[in-house]
Amino acid sequence: MIKVGIVGGTGYTGVELLRLLAGHHQVQLQAITSRKEDGVAVADMFPSLRGHVDLAFSSPDKAALDRCDVVFFATPHGVAMAQARELLAAGVRIIDLAADFRLQDTAVFEQWYGMPHTCPELLSEAVYGLPEIHRHALAKARLVGNPGCYPTTVQLGLLPLLEKGGLIDTQHIIADCKSGVSGAGRKAELPYLLTEAGDNFKAYGVKGHRHHPEIVEQLQKIAGVPIHLTFVPHLVPMIRGMFSTLYVTLTDAGQAIDCHALYADRYANEPFVDVLPKGMLPDTRSVRASNMLRIAVHQQGQQLILLVVQDNLTKGAAGQAVQVMNAMFGLPETTGLTGIAVLP
Amino acid sequence: MIKVGIVGGTGYTGVELLRLLAGHHQVQLQAITSRKEDGVAVADMFPSLRGHVDLAFSSPDKAALDRCDVVFFATPHGVAMAQARELLAAGVRIIDLAADFRLQDTAVFEQWYGMPHTCPELLSEAVYGLPEIHRHALAKARLVGNPGCYPTTVQLGLLPLLEKGGLIDTQHIIADCKSGVSGAGRKAELPYLLTEAGDNFKAYGVKGHRHHPEIVEQLQKIAGVPIHLTFVPHLVPMIRGMFSTLYVTLTDAGQAIDCHALYADRYANEPFVDVLPKGMLPDTRSVRASNMLRIAVHQQGQQLILLVVQDNLTKGAAGQAVQVMNAMFGLPETTGLTGIAVLP
Amino acid sequence: MIKVGIVGGTGYTGVELLRLLAGHHQVQLQAITSRKEDGVAVADMFPSLRGHVDLAFSSPDKAALDRCDVVFFATPHGVAMAQARELLAAGVRIIDLAADFRLQDTAVFEQWYGMPHTCPELLSEAVYGLPEIHRHALAKARLVGNPGCYPTTVQLGLLPLLEKGGLIDTQHIIADCKSGVSGAGRKAELPYLLTEAGDNFKAYGVKGHRHHPEIVEQLQKIAGVPIHLTFVPHLVPMIRGMFSTLYVTLTDAGQAIDCHALYADRYANEPFVDVLPKGMLPDTRSVRASNMLRIAVHQQGQQLILLVVQDNLTKGAAGQAVQVMNAMFGLPETTGLTGIAVLP
Amino acid sequence: MIKVGIVGGTGYTGVELLRLLAGHHQVQLQAITSRKEDGVAVADMFPSLRGHVDLAFSSPDKAALDRCDVVFFATPHGVAMAQARELLAAGVRIIDLAADFRLQDTAVFEQWYGMPHTCPELLSEAVYGLPEIHRHALAKARLVGNPGCYPTTVQLGLLPLLEKGGLIDTQHIIADCKSGVSGAGRKAELPYLLTEAGDNFKAYGVKGHRHHPEIVEQLQKIAGVPIHLTFVPHLVPMIRGMFSTLYVTLTDAGQAIDCHALYADRYANEPFVDVLPKGMLPDTRSVRASNMLRIAVHQQGQQLILLVVQDNLTKGAAGQAVQVMNAMFGLPETTGLTGIAVLP
Repeated sequence: MIKVGIVGGTGYTGVELLRLLAGHHQVQLQAITSRKEDGVAVADMFPSLRGHVDLAFSSPDKAALDRCDVVFFATPHGVAMAQARELLAAGVRIIDLAADFRLQDTAVFEQWYGMPHTCPELLSEAVYGLPEIHRHALAKARLVGNPGCYPTTVQLGLLPLLEKGGLIDTQHIIADCKSGVSGAGRKAELPYLLTEAGDNFKAYGVKGHRHHPEIVEQLQKIAGVPIHLTFVPHLVPMIRGMFSTLYVTLTDAGQAIDCHALYADRYANEPFVDVLPKGMLPDTRSVRASNMLRIAVHQQGQQLILLVVQDNLTKGAAGQAVQVMNAMFGLPETTGLTGIAVLP
Repeated sequence: MIKVGIVGGTGYTGVELLRLLAGHHQVQLQAITSRKEDGVAVADMFPSLRGHVDLAFSSPDKAALDRCDVVFFATPHGVAMAQARELLAAGVRIIDLAADFRLQDTAVFEQWYGMPHTCPELLSEAVYGLPEIHRHALAKARLVGNPGCYPTTVQLGLLPLLEKGGLIDTQHIIADCKSGVSGAGRKAELPYLLTEAGDNFKAYGVKGHRHHPEIVEQLQKIAGVPIHLTFVPHLVPMIRGMFSTLYVTLTDAGQAIDCHALYADRYANEPFVDVLPKGMLPDTRSVRASNMLRIAVHQQGQQLILLVVQDNLTKGAAGQAVQVMNAMFGLPETTGLTGIAVLP
Repeated sequence: MIKVGIVGGTGYTGVELLRLLAGHHQVQLQAITSRKEDGVAVADMFPSLRGHVDLAFSSPDKAALDRCDVVFFATPHGVAMAQARELLAAGVRIIDLAADFRLQDTAVFEQWYGMPHTCPELLSEAVYGLPEIHRHALAKARLVGNPGCYPTTVQLGLLPLLEKGGLIDTQHIIADCKSGVSGAGRKAELPYLLTEAGDNFKAYGVKGHRHHPEIVEQLQKIAGVPIHLTFVPHLVPMIRGMFSTLYVTLTDAGQAIDCHALYADRYANEPFVDVLPKGMLPDTRSVRASNMLRIAVHQQGQQLILLVVQDNLTKGAAGQAVQVMNAMFGLPETTGLTGIAVLP
Repeated sequence: MIKVGIVGGTGYTGVELLRLLAGHHQVQLQAITSRKEDGVAVADMFPSLRGHVDLAFSSPDKAALDRCDVVFFATPHGVAMAQARELLAAGVRIIDLAADFRLQDTAVFEQWYGMPHTCPELLSEAVYGLPEIHRHALAKARLVGNPGCYPTTVQLGLLPLLEKGGLIDTQHIIADCKSGVSGAGRKAELPYLLTEAGDNFKAYGVKGHRHHPEIVEQLQKIAGVPIHLTFVPHLVPMIRGMFSTLYVTLTDAGQAIDCHALYADRYANEPFVDVLPKGMLPDTRSVRASNMLRIAVHQQGQQLILLVVQDNLTKGAAGQAVQVMNAMFGLPETTGLTGIAVLP
């Protein structure tokens, strides 16, 4: 049994982690911390967990996280880096669902997250938690930076093309992305009220979004060449789900191959990436509450369109973190993640 | 032209008032106050008003409200009573959309609103702003307490029965009420996030709700006998709209009459109360963004069921306030309120 | 392994059955029939099942249902009774999710379902599939009529009171019920378009609803006395979920006891009925996609209010059917039903 | 007074036309036809119109449309062209909200709409009903093809650039468009159920959409050069609203100018096109139920992003048709279209 701690479980990634870990037969949930909710039963905050999770939130000081095998940080940015050294020293492995260990460049981190990076010496060993690319490194990782939700769709949506190289114009990639409102977290903020976000559609972050540098850094690693990405996120009046429409221009080499076959081959053995048959289009509900990501490949002359869906809280956050944990502890990656999407 | 001021126009009743008043040809909008948003253009906060409202919010001190003919308070409870004396003294008439002047009993007010009533001497002259009952008093009123949204549906839903008297068991009235989320106001509070209130249904306030004493006080005035009302409000995952299902038990006298005809007669000349033909059932969208309230009357043996719909922001708040203003200033009550419900 | 067949799996109860059965480790899915979709892969119709269900729909003639241990009918009313005799003769047990075997009185069936009952001789052995009441009979049942969604909430909401007897006025029970749109099934009908049912709330079936006689028949069996029930169903702009607000008047005996304790005791050992702590109110999302039903008990003088939530497709249909199957085959009732509600 | 007839008013463009025309003081509604609903009161089908529209639907034969000044066709494609000759001969002007008179090339029409064009001789006189481009021609037009909803956003979103010429790479234009569900019309079709389209996001028509050739034909007329447009429509879980995100690559000339100023100048006098201040982003609710279209211009290096919103039923259909009618009959274009967007 893997002894698991969660720091900061009062948000949506937290409750999703709890839902998944409570059904994971190799996991023993040891502690879940929240300074503010110290002593409150988890199931009182999230009645959906009544009968499944008996823990109460506890203050970080009392939580004995150092006796865990692994600790998930489902916290605002900045929390994990404050506690990472000590936990690692105690032999605890860390999966951070925030941004502290996603970006290698601390200057970029500081620009986008508005705080100094207090733990730069650990960045070089931090593994980027995308199992489809980094599962070998994850097997030995002590410290993992779990990807953002947008970055997961864009990277897995472009990976086969960029790995191969020479197939697309890497200076003109457009990612028109749409997210359900849960991506904004469980925070009392005006724009996410049902009365504001409901029956409404809008773009945001057009001038710049934190996930943009993360995506570009990772895409460049994959491709080995500079990437220019135009990235526009939008807010959809739904709770869960992310849909990314990616537009790339094929080179002559790209036009000469069957891109659908390229994707089907690359992901043939991936348990959580589903390349749809030609002509089938994805919708977000087909992955609701599951860890699956689905891709449609639509090729038309020099234009290639990739349509990618995932549940932003599952494959886009907590489910991916559990998949990472499985990879870190030598379990089949699908352990505890076999739940089928809820439709309708 | 009526010179109008609005105190506190940054909430949903505020923006609904602005929408209605901007299209009201007898109104000249003089000032709209917000201490916090002083200097901000109204249309920057509510882009729907771009091209329609040129005003900026101004600090209350600078607003020269005393030069208005009438001032609407679209504020939290407690604000109107702090400013009422001074405005009345300056000859300004007041329509308060909050609760300050709804309840005659200050002890009840203090119990439910958690603050002392600082203006008790004005209560006796305050008119309850339900034109279907009080339009003669409104014509001369200086000070109006505009009804709450639930109270409007329950009162107009029961009025014909209670006015007549002896028709129903007044000790067993049940009001199962359902409200869209905008009823909670434009406040950054967790329960009203799309992720919390969306795709979800719940009851609230079962132990007690502020509108309960207001409803009972008014119903008792209408009926002239004690009333026992069970009132359960629910939250519907929609933006606007209120649906009240009222269950009453008919006496022998009540069973002997045609209740539908009673309602049809009572409301025959009311411009904003629509008694549906027998067998037709209302839905909230049939009144969306309009000032209409619709009632279906379903009689079956000793059981009478009233189904009442309104837009909680229009007939349930801002529209009713404009109707009240029209009554106060001798205009046809429908002036500025002829907008047709938006369907779909 | 239980060999399972499904007749008519193209609706929402069908896809929910598939989701649950695909994750049930004691079940082997043998066949799923649809005359219209013969040959179509189930996962092509419901992409959420890609990778989980390999079956194709097959025409009923080819499906060899007689080799199954149990067959679920997720069909329109009337289909199960046409095939029941033959399957039972072949030793196949039947769980009908439609109404064919719910009502004992064929005249009532014919009045409400508009078709003759062609299988009246089997009604006496049909067991009503509510495990909380009939689990002993279910253990040996060959033929089960699975309850409707509304009836489940109303019966479990009133069961402790009615079993005990003498606690409430059985002539004045009001059930104000609210259902998500999936209750209407997967049928292309105008009123259930997003553009019609979305951002809207309405009542329906006020003159009479098919579930009314079913509820009354069962309540009378439980209580052993005549029941008068006023039942008003409403349509909520959400996909899944049912919320029933039940109003009963306590007798003196009823007022003398602690009703909350009565409920807590009655359901202490029920895996799928959760009596909430005093003061906690349920919401539908706390049971979304799970088989749990939650009840709050609010007692105030002679008025008792029960607030009951379930997922109409799970505990209200397919989940209950799986629970019934477990009871029929001697498995723990929770087998395959441990999925935690999806929140948010 | 303009005597107006409507053919086929039972859909969403029909009821939106009725809402707008019932509030238009220069219009006298003469007849509204529906063969299927002959004799049914309009307000029985659309209760939102109770008290505002007294007409009943009448069979086309009885409707005396030839006594109207103008007839709107809010019908499926193919109906207007069957009746156009006769009405024009009777001196009636025609505004077709379907596609019959949008495309000049009948072969393209036949390919996309799957029916022969039976009225090709009228195409040359048909005016494309986009007042921002064609208002002079509209003033004299007898026959108008009202633009589709997507085409309106894309054309007005690109118009200033294309009119000027030389500013963008016309071979690489991407329109990532998102529509509310009402764009699919009031038809009982499975994909548009709340249970299918709700809490869900998807693309459709990626292989080709009827609006694509319409957009390209018009853009090429504006630009005078060939255009290559990639167009991907998506379905948003909301009722009304359209959001188009347009990606264009600026030439050196394009990068040298202030694109925001170009747009602000071009639309300075347009009553229904609102160019937002730099940095402000639009959302669909800011135009809900109004005839306004809003554009944000975001320029970054060689990349220009246009974000365009409208209400698909108003500026995208019925509102635009009324604006066109005003232009045809010499009224101010804003007549009857001053309704303010409903927010929230």
